[in-house]
Amino acid sequence: MDAGSAPEQVTVGSPGWPGQVTERTMADGRPMFYFDDQATPGPVHEAIDTRPLPEPPHAGEVRFDVLTGEWVTIAGHRMNRTFLPSAADCPLCPTRDPAHASEVPDADYDVAVFANRFPSFAPLTVDPAAPHPPVLGPADQPAYGHCDVVVFSSDHSAAVVDLPAARMRTIVEAWAQRTEAHSVDPGVAEVFVFENRGEEIGVTLTHPHGQIYAYPFVPPRSAQLLQQARRHRQATGGNLLADVLEAEQAESTRVVLRGEHFTAYVPRAARWPVEVHLAPHRDVPDLAALDDAERAELATVYQELLRRVDRFHPGVDRVPYISGWHQAPTGEDRELGRLHLQLFSLLRAPGKLKYLAGSESGMGAWINDTTPERIADRLREVAS
Amino acid sequence: MDAGSAPEQVTVGSPGWPGQVTERTMADGRPMFYFDDQATPGPVHEAIDTRPLPEPPHAGEVRFDVLTGEWVTIAGHRMNRTFLPSAADCPLCPTRDPAHASEVPDADYDVAVFANRFPSFAPLTVDPAAPHPPVLGPADQPAYGHCDVVVFSSDHSAAVVDLPAARMRTIVEAWAQRTEAHSVDPGVAEVFVFENRGEEIGVTLTHPHGQIYAYPFVPPRSAQLLQQARRHRQATGGNLLADVLEAEQAESTRVVLRGEHFTAYVPRAARWPVEVHLAPHRDVPDLAALDDAERAELATVYQELLRRVDRFHPGVDRVPYISGWHQAPTGEDRELGRLHLQLFSLLRAPGKLKYLAGSESGMGAWINDTTPERIADRLREVAS
Repeated sequence: MDAGSAPEQVTVGSPGWPGQVTERTMADGRPMFYFDDQATPGPVHEAIDTRPLPEPPHAGEVRFDVLTGEWVTIAGHRMNRTFLPSAADCPLCPTRDPAHASEVPDADYDVAVFANRFPSFAPLTVDPAAPHPPVLGPADQPAYGHCDVVVFSSDHSAAVVDLPAARMRTIVEAWAQRTEAHSVDPGVAEVFVFENRGEEIGVTLTHPHGQIYAYPFVPPRSAQLLQQARRHRQATGGNLLADVLEAEQAESTRVVLRGEHFTAYVPRAARWPVEVHLAPHRDVPDLAALDDAERAELATVYQELLRRVDRFHPGVDRVPYISGWHQAPTGEDRELGRLHLQLFSLLRAPGKLKYLAGSESGMGAWINDTTPERIADRLREVAS
Repeated sequence: MDAGSAPEQVTVGSPGWPGQVTERTMADGRPMFYFDDQATPGPVHEAIDTRPLPEPPHAGEVRFDVLTGEWVTIAGHRMNRTFLPSAADCPLCPTRDPAHASEVPDADYDVAVFANRFPSFAPLTVDPAAPHPPVLGPADQPAYGHCDVVVFSSDHSAAVVDLPAARMRTIVEAWAQRTEAHSVDPGVAEVFVFENRGEEIGVTLTHPHGQIYAYPFVPPRSAQLLQQARRHRQATGGNLLADVLEAEQAESTRVVLRGEHFTAYVPRAARWPVEVHLAPHRDVPDLAALDDAERAELATVYQELLRRVDRFHPGVDRVPYISGWHQAPTGEDRELGRLHLQLFSLLRAPGKLKYLAGSESGMGAWINDTTPERIADRLREVAS
């Protein structure tokens, strides 16, 4: 590790967020960003990444599945990605010992964001291999896009739910700013901000982190939602997600939390044993469109929802979950989309997971062994 | 258990299948069928089910998910189903000791088929609860339908792949006959024949068995496929699944097995670490439409595919898998469907499962860490 150098760019936060962003470049050219909770005068994050890294891997390809009309990503190079490393070799920890340099060169940080070293989608692409001509559908495309890793804390064993409020606010800022940055890339069709938590759902790095995927296509769930939203607009003139929110608020049976700017409810056709949606009251396409007041409340409300999920099953401390921010596509049909969070868990009882077997994985037909109303009752019962 | 009584009905097999079917009724009124490999003169399967069972549970309800346009089944009563019982309490074993009466009253059998005691869909339904009015979509519907359990052997620790050829032929017969029986029910929209194998994917009973779901709606994957098939027919006049088969045969890179009546290939947009499709050469809507020669070859070819899946990963004896027979819907759009098997595994390497995390479960966007061509190479390499 060198003595350090001036960072590429430092941006100080807005009135609503007192932090700052420092932009750096990794040894193999990947971009990285430090999001600090507080702006500090003077040089920050000067450590530079001097690891002898190979050039970043090229992306794989996306193939059209003519039977379903969906794109599938073929990422053969990811088979060898890092799998549950020991804490000493964690690539997301700060670099405290140059002999064990991680992906983050500095010895400490608040939030670090960088391009994934084993990406499903990447800016560097190659043309898909020629010998596999298309079978009745569009030709293969390079898996262009971006896969960010968002490290929530330098503490290897922290959890998002326990972070201080200021940190959660910084994470919201990182989500919003990275969404904005990826959305202006003409090769990106939609930006998905998400976190997988828990080895039960295949998390390969336990250090607290989330991810951002900037897809080159509108992903299948979004495509379905846009189709439903288009039908709804044609039939009623309304926005589907706004009208669902209003109906759930009026019906109230499944509402679990009401804020000034956000409402959380269990969807009436919930498909997971624990599932809750969080929607802004204002029509906004994505996290980048939230104003300061909304970002501040979101930080609070989000942690409250995570706390309730952790308390859902008596006797279970840490519930595995998937948390995904659905945002409007960046181009066509943008006006039909609307920001919402889908937070769910596969844990149906202590020690028992909901598995996706024949009906779900083979047919896409979900069977939920509980009712949405019971889920909502429990999520209200465990409120802080 | 009583001394026994004459069964309701015995049907002797066809020239192509020397077996026989015996129909019985369970203590709570559920139907059951014994499929024997060989027809035998004289009384068979006379034992009757005298357990003091409560009336069979009513089905839950199906709810329309207005965000995706899909039906989701809410089956709150299934939470307490039997979970990994000891062999002595296995509900699928023959009843050898009346004190431990199982679901199958006879002391031995070849293949037994009966209605699931904890069904996702059932003939006995109640109107969905009134207090949950629809939110911007069709009203809830009763989860009408049928869920069969198909027990492949009386041997608790057998596996389909190791059963004698005559037994596999009987299983094909059971699949075909039950498909035919459910298809004439006007409340059934589509019949799905499948097997989940392996605790890794949540199998709760290890005794070798498969299932048949007769859905009251066209399930999501089928609805997508029919939409794609309709577009293809409008554009070309052809049948999508037949044309995909022909293209894969011509391209041949991903073909893993060619029979006289069936061809197996890895789909060019395979989404699982191990995935293979098996398609009949003749345009047939479902298993019931297969003739004797096709059923005979299917029995052989299917076991060969299962053997190859088991050999896929060096050092792994039994690969967990999901095997699903996609059939044409029973009503509208039947002419657009075509029988095909989708056989896949979540095991990406010994001890490593493919998990469905944020991108797959949240967005429906599959990332495959291997290539379809590599899967096909391996499935050819391990041929018998």
